[in-house]
Amino acid sequence: MKINIKPANGKLGILIPGLGAVATTLIAGVEAVKKGISQPVGSLTQMGSIRLGKRTENRHPKIKDFVPLAKLEDIVFGGWDVYEDNVYQAAMNAKVLDASLLNEVREGLEAIVPMKAAFDKNYAKNLDGTHVKTGTRYELAQQVMEDIKNFQTDNGLDRVVLVWCGSTEVYFEGSEIHQTLAAFEQALLDDDKRIAPSMIYAYAALKLGVPFANGAPNLTVDIPAMIELAKLTKTPISGKDFKTGQTLMKTVLAPGLAARSLGVHGWFSTNILGNRDGLVLDDPDNFKTKEVSKLGVLEDILRPEDNPELYGEIFHKIRINYYPPHGDNKESWDNIDIFGWLGYKMQIKINFLCRDSILAAPIALDLALFSDMAKRANMSGIQEWLSFYLKSPQTAPGLHAENDIFKQLIKLENTLRYLMGEDLITHLGLDYYDDMFVDNVQ
Amino acid sequence: MKINIKPANGKLGILIPGLGAVATTLIAGVEAVKKGISQPVGSLTQMGSIRLGKRTENRHPKIKDFVPLAKLEDIVFGGWDVYEDNVYQAAMNAKVLDASLLNEVREGLEAIVPMKAAFDKNYAKNLDGTHVKTGTRYELAQQVMEDIKNFQTDNGLDRVVLVWCGSTEVYFEGSEIHQTLAAFEQALLDDDKRIAPSMIYAYAALKLGVPFANGAPNLTVDIPAMIELAKLTKTPISGKDFKTGQTLMKTVLAPGLAARSLGVHGWFSTNILGNRDGLVLDDPDNFKTKEVSKLGVLEDILRPEDNPELYGEIFHKIRINYYPPHGDNKESWDNIDIFGWLGYKMQIKINFLCRDSILAAPIALDLALFSDMAKRANMSGIQEWLSFYLKSPQTAPGLHAENDIFKQLIKLENTLRYLMGEDLITHLGLDYYDDMFVDNVQ
Amino acid sequence: MKINIKPANGKLGILIPGLGAVATTLIAGVEAVKKGISQPVGSLTQMGSIRLGKRTENRHPKIKDFVPLAKLEDIVFGGWDVYEDNVYQAAMNAKVLDASLLNEVREGLEAIVPMKAAFDKNYAKNLDGTHVKTGTRYELAQQVMEDIKNFQTDNGLDRVVLVWCGSTEVYFEGSEIHQTLAAFEQALLDDDKRIAPSMIYAYAALKLGVPFANGAPNLTVDIPAMIELAKLTKTPISGKDFKTGQTLMKTVLAPGLAARSLGVHGWFSTNILGNRDGLVLDDPDNFKTKEVSKLGVLEDILRPEDNPELYGEIFHKIRINYYPPHGDNKESWDNIDIFGWLGYKMQIKINFLCRDSILAAPIALDLALFSDMAKRANMSGIQEWLSFYLKSPQTAPGLHAENDIFKQLIKLENTLRYLMGEDLITHLGLDYYDDMFVDNVQ
Amino acid sequence: MKINIKPANGKLGILIPGLGAVATTLIAGVEAVKKGISQPVGSLTQMGSIRLGKRTENRHPKIKDFVPLAKLEDIVFGGWDVYEDNVYQAAMNAKVLDASLLNEVREGLEAIVPMKAAFDKNYAKNLDGTHVKTGTRYELAQQVMEDIKNFQTDNGLDRVVLVWCGSTEVYFEGSEIHQTLAAFEQALLDDDKRIAPSMIYAYAALKLGVPFANGAPNLTVDIPAMIELAKLTKTPISGKDFKTGQTLMKTVLAPGLAARSLGVHGWFSTNILGNRDGLVLDDPDNFKTKEVSKLGVLEDILRPEDNPELYGEIFHKIRINYYPPHGDNKESWDNIDIFGWLGYKMQIKINFLCRDSILAAPIALDLALFSDMAKRANMSGIQEWLSFYLKSPQTAPGLHAENDIFKQLIKLENTLRYLMGEDLITHLGLDYYDDMFVDNVQ
Repeated sequence: MKINIKPANGKLGILIPGLGAVATTLIAGVEAVKKGISQPVGSLTQMGSIRLGKRTENRHPKIKDFVPLAKLEDIVFGGWDVYEDNVYQAAMNAKVLDASLLNEVREGLEAIVPMKAAFDKNYAKNLDGTHVKTGTRYELAQQVMEDIKNFQTDNGLDRVVLVWCGSTEVYFEGSEIHQTLAAFEQALLDDDKRIAPSMIYAYAALKLGVPFANGAPNLTVDIPAMIELAKLTKTPISGKDFKTGQTLMKTVLAPGLAARSLGVHGWFSTNILGNRDGLVLDDPDNFKTKEVSKLGVLEDILRPEDNPELYGEIFHKIRINYYPPHGDNKESWDNIDIFGWLGYKMQIKINFLCRDSILAAPIALDLALFSDMAKRANMSGIQEWLSFYLKSPQTAPGLHAENDIFKQLIKLENTLRYLMGEDLITHLGLDYYDDMFVDNVQ
Repeated sequence: MKINIKPANGKLGILIPGLGAVATTLIAGVEAVKKGISQPVGSLTQMGSIRLGKRTENRHPKIKDFVPLAKLEDIVFGGWDVYEDNVYQAAMNAKVLDASLLNEVREGLEAIVPMKAAFDKNYAKNLDGTHVKTGTRYELAQQVMEDIKNFQTDNGLDRVVLVWCGSTEVYFEGSEIHQTLAAFEQALLDDDKRIAPSMIYAYAALKLGVPFANGAPNLTVDIPAMIELAKLTKTPISGKDFKTGQTLMKTVLAPGLAARSLGVHGWFSTNILGNRDGLVLDDPDNFKTKEVSKLGVLEDILRPEDNPELYGEIFHKIRINYYPPHGDNKESWDNIDIFGWLGYKMQIKINFLCRDSILAAPIALDLALFSDMAKRANMSGIQEWLSFYLKSPQTAPGLHAENDIFKQLIKLENTLRYLMGEDLITHLGLDYYDDMFVDNVQ
Repeated sequence: MKINIKPANGKLGILIPGLGAVATTLIAGVEAVKKGISQPVGSLTQMGSIRLGKRTENRHPKIKDFVPLAKLEDIVFGGWDVYEDNVYQAAMNAKVLDASLLNEVREGLEAIVPMKAAFDKNYAKNLDGTHVKTGTRYELAQQVMEDIKNFQTDNGLDRVVLVWCGSTEVYFEGSEIHQTLAAFEQALLDDDKRIAPSMIYAYAALKLGVPFANGAPNLTVDIPAMIELAKLTKTPISGKDFKTGQTLMKTVLAPGLAARSLGVHGWFSTNILGNRDGLVLDDPDNFKTKEVSKLGVLEDILRPEDNPELYGEIFHKIRINYYPPHGDNKESWDNIDIFGWLGYKMQIKINFLCRDSILAAPIALDLALFSDMAKRANMSGIQEWLSFYLKSPQTAPGLHAENDIFKQLIKLENTLRYLMGEDLITHLGLDYYDDMFVDNVQ
Repeated sequence: MKINIKPANGKLGILIPGLGAVATTLIAGVEAVKKGISQPVGSLTQMGSIRLGKRTENRHPKIKDFVPLAKLEDIVFGGWDVYEDNVYQAAMNAKVLDASLLNEVREGLEAIVPMKAAFDKNYAKNLDGTHVKTGTRYELAQQVMEDIKNFQTDNGLDRVVLVWCGSTEVYFEGSEIHQTLAAFEQALLDDDKRIAPSMIYAYAALKLGVPFANGAPNLTVDIPAMIELAKLTKTPISGKDFKTGQTLMKTVLAPGLAARSLGVHGWFSTNILGNRDGLVLDDPDNFKTKEVSKLGVLEDILRPEDNPELYGEIFHKIRINYYPPHGDNKESWDNIDIFGWLGYKMQIKINFLCRDSILAAPIALDLALFSDMAKRANMSGIQEWLSFYLKSPQTAPGLHAENDIFKQLIKLENTLRYLMGEDLITHLGLDYYDDMFVDNVQ
């Protein structure tokens, strides 16, 4: 059995709300890779391989050679931003990539000029956007749909995907207008302030059948109204929040502790960063959104309710500090208080000198490419198999999210195997020891 | 289909060559747990649970309630050592557990007096054993077999397992005497110095059909002669080297980096510890054995030959330093130089303030209990599914060892599910999204 | 020339507002030292030595043998607290010292029962005191004076000193009532809420000529009214804020960077602690007081106004996080971004696993003993030479505080040498090379 | 009283044996500073200021404005090396400074071509020099003297100094040929292999009255024969071993611990670096020289013999690991086990991501400039006041070296004040509190 996937013919447009550090790092990087200057390290779709069959078969094709993804050569970038800098200028301001590298791809980057953004300062108080659309929320959604269609026509694109790379919006919980598509569309007409800007982009995309991936912890597509719309238009959605830096490490380490039944008394996580993201998160309301996204992973992985002796009293605290000297070089420090045999205490300290956008850019790329493939495979609605990339993955209603990155990876890989008709891998491997159970199988 | 496993009736003897820090921490701990004073944290068999069936079934039984393991109440401990201290005295000297805890179980510990050890100072120059057997290697093996049989009879045991908790022996590679059982038995008769003391214990155990697990990086059962003997007597074997501390962290973290296709330029690992193990490893020949065991894990997990752009130039260095102020509180510091998108560099620093014996003791327990169950399930020879616990796992000849702790865990769990006739878990989970592929399955 | 110092005859009472973790650690420790169980490590007066004369003289007496201090045997402790636990109970709750140690000095500790505190919840919102005095601020001051006098009489004391070990009070700046003694005394009569509880104790002490040292960052004696009173009654005062943990490290390291003309871009300091102090500081108003005290040290040491190229743009951020798993084991992590030759960047990370009260207790002891000696030497008013112990030292009006711990130490040592008529030390040492300047001195 | 110092008229030649990472970083940096591109951060002579008079006088001139130093504009660089690369090529290979910076000063650097080195592979086994002089040790010394004189003439220099920036030589202790000038000169004639290459340079320099500073831990000028020669020719000497990185931090931190009478159980120091220095130190014989230099500082600062309760049992271990991924970016990690009040244990971990040559270059500059000034001030022989810059300072025979960096700084500053006729500073400061001792001075 193999799933039917339309081939990746023609050009793919990747449209990005928020042409800041992450987006410009992605775009400049893809240009550099296309020119043969650099490698797309950190991208599973480009650099990763997948084991097929038995260990002894030694089959490890690159993922891009295994499943039908769009090629980097066929990608066209575009986007929206509250500032009018072109991508070259924005990338220079972001100070993530060296000027010398940016200058090698300058021409291509200067050609990408942001469209005016759908913006509401109430959702990001520390930003002062000037390059913005005007109109009611309904009108803004219409304008974004026009933007998408024009972008597709102007560039002769076969398909388009949207990836939210904008700032984190302030925290709020869904209300009645987010529960059904009908209520949401009425709220658009009413210009209801409870519709966040990111939802306007998501609505416009889904309405057109364009896949949407959400790189920030905002609700955005994680509301019943959007899920309803995604199913209606047979469109893949995924979110929330690119899993980079500290949370990436946490979802690597926590499964390791749980695997060994080691207890955890406390986990203190602090971050210092000095980019635009750090500035936005310096506002407590925006930090709240991020905090909720980051806090959840431990609870899911350790399941204190099922393991009260080990994780019942865990104290988990997360701090993000705006610290300009580090710019985009986000740095985290974690102190983890664990206990082992007979309750004896041990400590783990992790200091991650990371680079926020360097880790996020390949995730944005992979989500775009996989979302596009999912659309061609007729996979609609929530793509839980992409939770590998996300801090706070969307799941089917009533289903516990899986945050263990290794289970997420198996899920992703087995999904790819399933799509291509390969055997799923269980790592049982008893067949290598064929005389083990002689005379013992019932 | 379900595998037939004999029930765990009667008492189980756990015999340990090397009643030092790890062994005494294990024995005292089991006594404390039996008295209800402490919890066996870090032991998957005692504290861990296993998911069965679909996520929505919410079935997570404790492993000890799922598979037929011996109960802690049915365990009787014994062992050999080059010093004649009883287990209480040895535990006090080891300074791993608090005196107050040891005093609560003092009586039981004082009753366990080591038998004389089979020892050869050439294999551990920094040790001065006085409580040792005399005779040729053949005679020593006969004496150890007598010890095992007497121990079983004297304590009215149903079954016995051996777990090597002795020091790391000096490095050497297998020679012709290690290739076949016949050659090995001749070498025993010849009192050939190339037979390490640990091999004498292993031979005696396997000859009697007693399972053997190797907690040190010595070859011991990882030679063709022993594998041949294990199959002949239908006995489970496992090794090498309890996976604790720094290597545990490494096999947690490296899969995380590989999962995300992040590159690695270098990995520097240093350790400070001040217990007997540290003293033995202060000798370069003994350290060599440990180094080989510790170095291999990265290569297996990252597979530089298949991923040359990411891992082709990795520089991996490991140091162990004898540092008395820390005693058994082994501490590691790792510096990891990674690179991401476009080759941009990042660093991870991990400082693990761990406790060597606290991490090792529950591993010794689990290996003993699982080895015993394997014997009752008629599983003979190399138990690769126990590689979860080991730094340098034994595998079928020609098979690459799997060091990724998460793949090792899936292998272990799916083996348990297989034994009990439960569905293997693949984490595919597409069935939760049942309308996803409408009209699309070929 | 030598200063006349009255001998330390008779008993010295040390009265402490706030019998929490620091005070009980101090009291239990002095008892343990008197019993010969432990050593007063961290106390310069008890363990430290001082160089006298030229290097070649090899004179290094202990400080306690060099200047006339009260002996530990002559100390009697007492104090006030908002909880009625005796010192043994309070020490057990504080969980700083092991129960086994506390039990060895239990009797002496149980005998010390706190007097009712002068308390105002507005100054420490996270505390719920029940063991408190009632009355107007004037009446409270009278009651505290009575307490002091009774304590002196009841215990047959020759002299008394007060050391504030209470919690940090909320932040406020001095107003007109703090400017003169007359205004302050009128405000007492008016029960003016701008008089903090700590000021009531300080006023009572100084009025009686009893030296007062302030271990918290509250203003307390650092207002003109108190300085006026101290001079009037010829009483030594010192403050503010015991210099422990992170700030101690900062005033060690920053002088090292400045010595070498290394630049600093940023200094990020975070703390995790879980004791009562941490709980109080979880309130932003109380944290503000602490923050001001902690922030000042860098500015003083690095003097950005005089060294704008090196320190003109320093970004300094301090965070304190309440983290119960660590209890009194305060832990700090600092990231320091420095730059050297040609502006090249380097980083220093410091992780201090410290114990708050263990570092503070000997400071409280030294301040008590030195304050008492100062009183006997007729040294009145601000004792700047004790700034060695303090985060935010009081100085003569208009004088820049000196926070470099090494300059503070020289000041302290040269003060002691001065008092005892010894040569001050300049470390010039040219006389060891006596032919260096032959024929060259003008 | 003021010392007579000849003015710094004319040009100063700085000749450097060993044009590797440190030397080329120094030379390129001075060129960059002269062009106004960069700042000489880390150089006390260029960036540092000095307090004069009372605190209230607010006099803090730059050191270069206070004492008569040669100006950067008047410096001419030259040197010797075992490789024939010019300084531009050598700097590019060293990878300390960015290519873009080096290209801005390329012309000046290319003009500096090394003279052939006096080399003996037995003193640095991991180096393969090809650009070397031939002849007996006596002849080599004559050739170096010719080199110096020619360099002075060719460049029209007023004065010359030598600063050793070559590799660390293998460890050896002085023998009878190093005890007197006569014996040493006879050994030169005998081509005695016990004369290390660095001694040939030193002898040549001192014979000509040219000051010599030693940046490596080799004996070099720290032997009686050289001291005798230095006095004879009235020439300043200083050594050994530029104090950078980990040892710099150690001599900052240890005085802080000692100041507070905090005990130390152990100090573990590890380093990773990947430059030529790291390669040379990978040889145990060369490491031994470095180890001796690095180990001594703690003992001097903590004086275990005088403080046995605090420092009597300190375990001090230092490791240097060759780790190519880090290049010149030497990184250190220290674990310090301290104890406080009643013996309670605490830990400090320091991770210093430093840059070896960036820290060393300004030290080389300062030593050159101060040595030149000392010569002009007629200060001959050992310059102990320069110990501030050195890991293992030379002192007068029988005199304990002072390694506390803060005492070293006071010594340096008070020496400058002394030279210029300013008051020495004692930090007593009692005069700011003029009524403190009213009626109390005897």
